[in-house]
Amino acid sequence: MTFDHLGIATTDGADLAATFEALFDAPVVHEETLDGMAVRFLDLDGGYFELLEPAEDGAIARFLDRQGPGIHHVALRTDDVAAALDRARSVGVDLVDEGPRPGAWGHEVAFLHPKSTGGVLVEYVEHAAEA
Amino acid sequence: MTFDHLGIATTDGADLAATFEALFDAPVVHEETLDGMAVRFLDLDGGYFELLEPAEDGAIARFLDRQGPGIHHVALRTDDVAAALDRARSVGVDLVDEGPRPGAWGHEVAFLHPKSTGGVLVEYVEHAAEA
Repeated sequence: MTFDHLGIATTDGADLAATFEALFDAPVVHEETLDGMAVRFLDLDGGYFELLEPAEDGAIARFLDRQGPGIHHVALRTDDVAAALDRARSVGVDLVDEGPRPGAWGHEVAFLHPKSTGGVLVEYVEHAAEA
Repeated sequence: MTFDHLGIATTDGADLAATFEALFDAPVVHEETLDGMAVRFLDLDGGYFELLEPAEDGAIARFLDRQGPGIHHVALRTDDVAAALDRARSVGVDLVDEGPRPGAWGHEVAFLHPKSTGGVLVEYVEHAAEA
């Protein structure tokens, strides 16, 4: 599998995007509103940062309340999320999502449960098209 | 800059390495003991996982005590850590390391302070040789 992006919970996505562009030459290449969040993808050579700023209550708002801003998850790219989930089941890993669901940027995604992966929240992502 | 690796704090690096190889086809490609930690690098297409298991008290042991196992930092690859630090200073970012220092795998590294980067602990890494 391939590194795809690092998901970061933030209370101010515009400000953090400006800092990351100044520091890392990582410009915003995609923005959308998804599940009550402002989502910004920043291009990094070899992957992306995904800044997640909640506009209403939800998983990211609760994460920010619980532990403050910072790294939320890592996303790995696969050609087939359903097959990756079958493999995870066969290894005995608990799943958050039993099947692929629509994620940001039109991709299919699914999350593994961090209790099975050393506290690391892992997302599988299958790109809708080359991006 | 380029994604280099994701640093993960763990209480059982051997067990987590086995899980990640079974799930992600990410084999251990380098192991060493550094600063009182067992360090394992797992090869992921486009970067690495770095599993950090403390053998004695230190920053990772304290991280585990404070918030449990999980993602600890993200490392970005640069050709020149000293120049990257100068740029961070010019942007007004606080530094953990004022200059490059020896890190795992013989690389030169330096950390930025997470209070300047949205709670994300960022490491710059300059490879000693192509790896």
